[in-house]
Amino acid sequence: MVERLAPDQRDAELARLHGWKLERNGDAIVKTFQFKDFSEAFAFMTRIALAAEKANHHPEWSNVWNKVTIALTTHSAGGLTAKDIALAAGIEKIAAAQDRS
Amino acid sequence: MVERLAPDQRDAELARLHGWKLERNGDAIVKTFQFKDFSEAFAFMTRIALAAEKANHHPEWSNVWNKVTIALTTHSAGGLTAKDIALAAGIEKIAAAQDRS
Repeated sequence: MVERLAPDQRDAELARLHGWKLERNGDAIVKTFQFKDFSEAFAFMTRIALAAEKANHHPEWSNVWNKVTIALTTHSAGGLTAKDIALAAGIEKIAAAQDRS
Repeated sequence: MVERLAPDQRDAELARLHGWKLERNGDAIVKTFQFKDFSEAFAFMTRIALAAEKANHHPEWSNVWNKVTIALTTHSAGGLTAKDIALAAGIEKIAAAQDRS
């Protein structure tokens, strides 16, 4: 089982990500991504879904037309773990690839 | 532009749907669907995304692993319209097809 990150580890990892905010007393990270339209937003979600399923670690997320808000936490560990950081980094790569297209 | 449903129309339409609840002072309908796992939940979302894009009318929705919560409203009309009822009916068909598989 993956272990919850200590606050100093968590802050160091967060500093390497871009624009993710701590929520739920530091137990989750959250970011909202905006796209041109629904089609772009759902394409983004689809790529994340594949990555999440492969990693067996899934986001809590919502979508309203061109906006996607993603919260990452590890329920089994009761907070943030390396799995969340890895998924956040993967999501950033997917977002960056889409922005360039 | 599509017009907001009058309360009696709205209630008659709602009676033909299954398990949708009025929220936001009667201006939105909301339902949560539960599946076996994330893969089933995202398959459901993908079919809805295609239907929504085709109809040019999109849900406000969230997903946590095997659960998908969907809110339907028509922003341009400031409430519920025939577009929401049609999308809700389409979503029910998609859910039913998936439950049978």
